[in-house]
Amino acid sequence: MVKAISFTLLSLATAISVVAALDPIGQFKRLGACPTLGCVFPPDNAEFLAGSHFDVRVEVHAENGATPNTAYSLTIEKLKGSQKDNKHDSKPKALDFSKWSKVKPSAQESWDFTYTKDAAAHWKVQDGDKTASTNVHVASTAWRKVQIKEPGTYKVVLKYNNGKKTEAIWTVNPTHKRKAKNVILFIGDGMTTAMITAARLISKPHTSGKYTKHMNMDQFPVLGHIMTQSLDSLITDSANSASAYNTGHKSSAGAMGVYPDSSPSPFDDPKQELIAELLRRRSKKNGGAGGVGIVTTAEVQDATPAAVYSHTRNRDEKSTIVDQMIHGANPVVADVILGGGGNYFHSKTGGKSLNGTDYYAAYSKERGYKVVNDRDALLKYKGKDPLLGIFHSGNMDVWMDRNVYKENLKSTRSDPTGTGLPALNQPNFDEMVVKGLEVLDRRHRKEGWFLMAEAASVDKMMHPLDYDRALADLLELDKTIGKTKEWLKRNKLDKDTLILVTADHAHSFDVYGSVDTQYFNSFSDSEELEKRNSIGTYENSGWPSYVDANGDGFPDSWDVRYTLAAGTAAFPTHREDFQISINGTRVPAVVSTTSHHHYPVYEANPKFDVHGISKGATMGSSESVGVHSLQDVPIFASGPGSNLFAGVQDNTEIFHKIAEVLGLGN
Amino acid sequence: MVKAISFTLLSLATAISVVAALDPIGQFKRLGACPTLGCVFPPDNAEFLAGSHFDVRVEVHAENGATPNTAYSLTIEKLKGSQKDNKHDSKPKALDFSKWSKVKPSAQESWDFTYTKDAAAHWKVQDGDKTASTNVHVASTAWRKVQIKEPGTYKVVLKYNNGKKTEAIWTVNPTHKRKAKNVILFIGDGMTTAMITAARLISKPHTSGKYTKHMNMDQFPVLGHIMTQSLDSLITDSANSASAYNTGHKSSAGAMGVYPDSSPSPFDDPKQELIAELLRRRSKKNGGAGGVGIVTTAEVQDATPAAVYSHTRNRDEKSTIVDQMIHGANPVVADVILGGGGNYFHSKTGGKSLNGTDYYAAYSKERGYKVVNDRDALLKYKGKDPLLGIFHSGNMDVWMDRNVYKENLKSTRSDPTGTGLPALNQPNFDEMVVKGLEVLDRRHRKEGWFLMAEAASVDKMMHPLDYDRALADLLELDKTIGKTKEWLKRNKLDKDTLILVTADHAHSFDVYGSVDTQYFNSFSDSEELEKRNSIGTYENSGWPSYVDANGDGFPDSWDVRYTLAAGTAAFPTHREDFQISINGTRVPAVVSTTSHHHYPVYEANPKFDVHGISKGATMGSSESVGVHSLQDVPIFASGPGSNLFAGVQDNTEIFHKIAEVLGLGN
Repeated sequence: MVKAISFTLLSLATAISVVAALDPIGQFKRLGACPTLGCVFPPDNAEFLAGSHFDVRVEVHAENGATPNTAYSLTIEKLKGSQKDNKHDSKPKALDFSKWSKVKPSAQESWDFTYTKDAAAHWKVQDGDKTASTNVHVASTAWRKVQIKEPGTYKVVLKYNNGKKTEAIWTVNPTHKRKAKNVILFIGDGMTTAMITAARLISKPHTSGKYTKHMNMDQFPVLGHIMTQSLDSLITDSANSASAYNTGHKSSAGAMGVYPDSSPSPFDDPKQELIAELLRRRSKKNGGAGGVGIVTTAEVQDATPAAVYSHTRNRDEKSTIVDQMIHGANPVVADVILGGGGNYFHSKTGGKSLNGTDYYAAYSKERGYKVVNDRDALLKYKGKDPLLGIFHSGNMDVWMDRNVYKENLKSTRSDPTGTGLPALNQPNFDEMVVKGLEVLDRRHRKEGWFLMAEAASVDKMMHPLDYDRALADLLELDKTIGKTKEWLKRNKLDKDTLILVTADHAHSFDVYGSVDTQYFNSFSDSEELEKRNSIGTYENSGWPSYVDANGDGFPDSWDVRYTLAAGTAAFPTHREDFQISINGTRVPAVVSTTSHHHYPVYEANPKFDVHGISKGATMGSSESVGVHSLQDVPIFASGPGSNLFAGVQDNTEIFHKIAEVLGLGN
Repeated sequence: MVKAISFTLLSLATAISVVAALDPIGQFKRLGACPTLGCVFPPDNAEFLAGSHFDVRVEVHAENGATPNTAYSLTIEKLKGSQKDNKHDSKPKALDFSKWSKVKPSAQESWDFTYTKDAAAHWKVQDGDKTASTNVHVASTAWRKVQIKEPGTYKVVLKYNNGKKTEAIWTVNPTHKRKAKNVILFIGDGMTTAMITAARLISKPHTSGKYTKHMNMDQFPVLGHIMTQSLDSLITDSANSASAYNTGHKSSAGAMGVYPDSSPSPFDDPKQELIAELLRRRSKKNGGAGGVGIVTTAEVQDATPAAVYSHTRNRDEKSTIVDQMIHGANPVVADVILGGGGNYFHSKTGGKSLNGTDYYAAYSKERGYKVVNDRDALLKYKGKDPLLGIFHSGNMDVWMDRNVYKENLKSTRSDPTGTGLPALNQPNFDEMVVKGLEVLDRRHRKEGWFLMAEAASVDKMMHPLDYDRALADLLELDKTIGKTKEWLKRNKLDKDTLILVTADHAHSFDVYGSVDTQYFNSFSDSEELEKRNSIGTYENSGWPSYVDANGDGFPDSWDVRYTLAAGTAAFPTHREDFQISINGTRVPAVVSTTSHHHYPVYEANPKFDVHGISKGATMGSSESVGVHSLQDVPIFASGPGSNLFAGVQDNTEIFHKIAEVLGLGN
């Protein structure tokens, strides 16, 4: 449930809502959570863990050729209790922020940026009319590596433009006694309750409508929901959502470990400290520096894994992200890094590494990593050194192509070392996770550890509406959870380890019936109405033909007569035949070559589901695939501290709860 | 989580899967959960509460002109523990069912019925070719009002057709010591997590992307998910889902309190005992017969409320359902009945009461009901008599039309007493629920009570894709939960009362961005691409314009510039303008008058969202509105026994958990 601290904050926030602006209304905004011309980052309503490091930045904006007034000031005062009651602690009111924080501010900076005020302006700019954008001049000051050790409520005030004020109320949460030795955070990227329901349906036996076997997730004792909206928009992306889990702060699309400022550099934005960073400097009292593991089926520089160890406003800075892991300000240097993304480690075929550096060599030489690049080498590794396993040039192939339609891999140039050959020997997700557990256990059994393991392609396959591939990767996640529980039990760590299974955002997927594909395929392409009549709903939505007779947790065949009538609410123009895409991932839409617009306009891919029914787009013209959606995502919890995750909570609370369980802070 | 008892059953079910057939694959079936020509109801995998009453029916089928062999037998044996290990209790193996149950079977019956084997046959029949259906001859025997008092596992075997066998394993659950005095079951019909997320978004303030107020549901300490699939299809309707909650047994579309048999009568199907019936005959040991309350914004004969007190295979038998409440076999005679559905109580204008009876008079004279027909009379009632409040001829009007667009009510003939005038004085949902609580408290404070309160029009407005009206009714439910908690606290019943908030099934609704309707409306109808570009996703999905400045829990205006980009996966051909339908409920599609098919073919309603973008159907041609979907629905629990509802569970488990909390059975 929304935890007690939020209620305290709630009454406070209600009380101050007269002065503190709420989030601005409208699709476009000048800059993140900055409703006025004076910005404070971290903004109003931010929460911190006592003792964590963070940067502060203020910006003063001036639009339309005006010059920002460079005379501004930042003050802070600690409020008594959580009431803004004008009774104060012994400390005097409104201290100068630099003096109070004992942090020297940066020299005042200035820059320009542009934005568009609404859809009308945005699409004019997209169509080539740059005059429709608005120019902003900025004056700014930053304070780096601030720390507040005393829990409580603080009021921060930016005074600017001769009498204007921006107030931010910050809450600093207390630290807690450690509850668990280890935390495993499984993220099914983009995974929703509806997808879990559908995955259960195609893989578990049932008698008289009741399941006789269940998903591993279904057996977790604690369930919660997580609200995922971002700092400044309804719909989050994976970067900004993963950032909330790793820092306790919301952010904007594409940002990780920072509040995005308006400056040109993607690396000077005000940072917040990460779970991994806090764990690396955990107090001796709480067991000392713990281990960090990162496993993903995506590129290890992709948003969800990168948010564990990097800070940047722009998730696309993948080459630099690889560098940050070992060369950043307080580099995380994770004990385990397993996934794809080889192209950012080398400069050979397809390589894009930073300054052409061989990062495989750098990780190995500078930080002692054992480097492996295929499944055999991974499974063979029994050493104590940190482990870097990169198995694909980009995102790893999905379970369906790794295990069922293996032919699809052969034409790729996906080798992670830049040979230009296909990567045909990739591990499965459960193999990576179990190996990660072994290494973490060998290196940090005493201190404990934090493992983030992402089933990335639930999301990556939902985007192109490839539901079969997405559900297969969800089943692989569920299988991995089972293997993890077995491993923990075998190694007597089950009572010391909190397991969380969640997602970072949703897609609007659901199942609404079953499809008789034999009937569907009996009609010609022009008989769309008759094809649609193959979709059975309610009493005519009998069971699909997926059967798992061999008990491996996946359907024995995916190319069956009775399939799922499934879809989403948000899609580009495409065709749908409700049948497995055997020859590779679906590509629903392609750029129109006949559009007169300057921006891309997507139309149905003539090679995709050619005999399917037509579905006209429900989104903007430039969306090529399905998009994320708003619904709360589930979190399943098991182990010490799991009760903290029951009920409904904000995504930022996940950070604070993990920090509580691991005894981080101060 | 899936509770322990299911795991026991699981190993058992796995063990017996060789003999017991799993659910048949394919959209169409001969009869419910009857995979062979010999049917046993209750079927394999059924669970009972010890001491509850239920009927048993066996059917032997013969297709294509064959005659069913009337020589069949039914036996039962109690298995040792939950293992099918051939070690038996002192009782001998496989006793004749009549002897064992001490219930005399009915005389053998016989009848015919027809069904279609698949979509091809179904649509031939729909298009006028009756020869495509399959005829079945049936021989059948029923045992009425059976009772098993001893918890354990039972094997029931139907032997038929000279050596064929159908086995059913039944589990009889133990009774428990009562945990709570009262249970309130709120059902947001068709309500999903995505709808709660959207309702929160349009009604609650937020600062820097974090809510500063929350829904009442969000503050419940325990959260679970419920699997809703039906006995014989993926997608449930409200009848069969509500039946699972009230009996602990799955059923088929349209059925309540029975397993549907194949006989012509909708009233002779094998019954299961209801929570309300069990509560009415609760043992003195557990506090004696308790009170029953039913509140709904639908007709009180509609599926969800009717499942509390009636038994029929066909939810459309509304006139008889009104009669069952007071004249059924063990009539529930609820203490409180509040909602719509006046037309089934009288025979005046619009009236359809059974045999023309005046049921208002019958309820009053025969059972002492106080009858009220408008809000004033409801609020004024302070008596101790049972209360029948019927406020509309059909389903009550929705919150939006009752409170915002009141003009829409004036042209109706919705008076519940058959005057032909509009019902302009309808109570709100919270007023009905609080009055229901008062009456139950006055009549049954000592014995305790069970109240089912349904916000019916979340579902009824999701069907026609009227998301605004659906979300408003969801907000009214949430407001009612708040009022209920206040009332319980004020009356010192909060510690004695379990509150559950859940749904019965889903719709595939979600939000995927925000819409600038000013930009949308600036284009002509032919400029669909440009209209679609008013939909902002990700970083361009800034906050919509809904504001609740007056703090009543609803947006102050629904006709705003920035609205939700929302939709479903399952819809008929229609147009969408993303704006409130001011002049009444949406009607997305209408029957084509030019179709050459014998079955109805729906096309976009020319009067609905006339300036909207086109959306081509994703369903069969005869679906006029959106349909239910598969995803698990949330259940929020608070109060004594709430922990039982954590994690993932089948909808049938809700019955057993409520029975446990209220101390029902035996």
